[in-house]
Amino acid sequence: MKLYTYWRSSAAYRVRIALNLKQIEAEMIPVHLVKDGGQQHTLAYATKNPSHLVPTLELEDGTVLTQSLAIIDYLEALNPAPALLPTDPVLRAKVLAAAHVIAMDIHPVNNLRVTNHLGDMFGADADAKKEWMCYWMEKGFEALEQLVQKDTKFAFGDAPTLADICLVPQYYNARRWGLDLSPYPRLTEIEKTCLALPAFANAAPEAQFDAE
Amino acid sequence: MKLYTYWRSSAAYRVRIALNLKQIEAEMIPVHLVKDGGQQHTLAYATKNPSHLVPTLELEDGTVLTQSLAIIDYLEALNPAPALLPTDPVLRAKVLAAAHVIAMDIHPVNNLRVTNHLGDMFGADADAKKEWMCYWMEKGFEALEQLVQKDTKFAFGDAPTLADICLVPQYYNARRWGLDLSPYPRLTEIEKTCLALPAFANAAPEAQFDAE
Repeated sequence: MKLYTYWRSSAAYRVRIALNLKQIEAEMIPVHLVKDGGQQHTLAYATKNPSHLVPTLELEDGTVLTQSLAIIDYLEALNPAPALLPTDPVLRAKVLAAAHVIAMDIHPVNNLRVTNHLGDMFGADADAKKEWMCYWMEKGFEALEQLVQKDTKFAFGDAPTLADICLVPQYYNARRWGLDLSPYPRLTEIEKTCLALPAFANAAPEAQFDAE
Repeated sequence: MKLYTYWRSSAAYRVRIALNLKQIEAEMIPVHLVKDGGQQHTLAYATKNPSHLVPTLELEDGTVLTQSLAIIDYLEALNPAPALLPTDPVLRAKVLAAAHVIAMDIHPVNNLRVTNHLGDMFGADADAKKEWMCYWMEKGFEALEQLVQKDTKFAFGDAPTLADICLVPQYYNARRWGLDLSPYPRLTEIEKTCLALPAFANAAPEAQFDAE
């Protein structure tokens, strides 16, 4: 299979972690989100992904899957071990909710196309965009610090789940934009535990062959 | 169980549809998102939902679940029939992706707290907020029109799935803000089919006892 990816996209980063955890091989096809006015807007790519976003997973038979969390759901069905979601329905809903605090409440509002549009519509400069991004990360991390478990190795239990897979890329963004992470000691500890695993470290932006 | 809800919240609307489809009874507890500076910010509510968002589901034993799609995942486990996601992994990922085009790419960027923050940070007035919301709905609906199936009764197949559950509340918002829906004939047809079902119609904002 092929993963259309961009080194700095945190949605693509999530899928790279999941592929590594499940030891599924995929060819990485870079889609540069900035160069050439954004390669995600080419007709060839937009035909696969009508949202003009990364990632996209293309299966051997040409089937195309979009949306990072939907792709990870597919990978979970393909290779159920190691499981990225618990079987207990309540715990599973709690892991999903923690993942969604990142994937719904923070990431979409801070997406490149959204901050670009802030520039187009309101003349937001680099400082205003950074302030905007940090505002939503603070709100989300504050909630997430309370939603994760307290005495476990990872966000939920002693193995990585979808919550960790969403947290680590968002933390990467937070560091990139200079957010003060000291109010979130538990999240910071979880990030450290995750990045000690090769599945996470090898999925990091700087470890990608298209990194600049 | 209790659902903390607000009549106009499209995330709460999704959960109301899912409860109805699965014929699960829940007591509706209104949380007014505008009155009193937003009742979602009270300590009593924020203790249950640290994201200060609706909906929240509280189980009989006091367990609290947050995030609409995580709550629906729990309801799916509790009452598997009728299924809101197909069993085939590829089709399941496609339904999830369509749901996430709404729940990740449109709804979070148009959330009340985001448009409020546009006002605070950039002085966006009512017209600018409307323009912002319509911009993201257009982008999302354009993609979604291509992602749903063509000759089925609902978005995928002949029974409602999570994709329909996400579409209908977003279409409610689109109509509220006067978006031209003529470029999306397939989505418009799906909305009509859904709203003919009591499970959808009874979950609509105007049918709620806290509607104004």
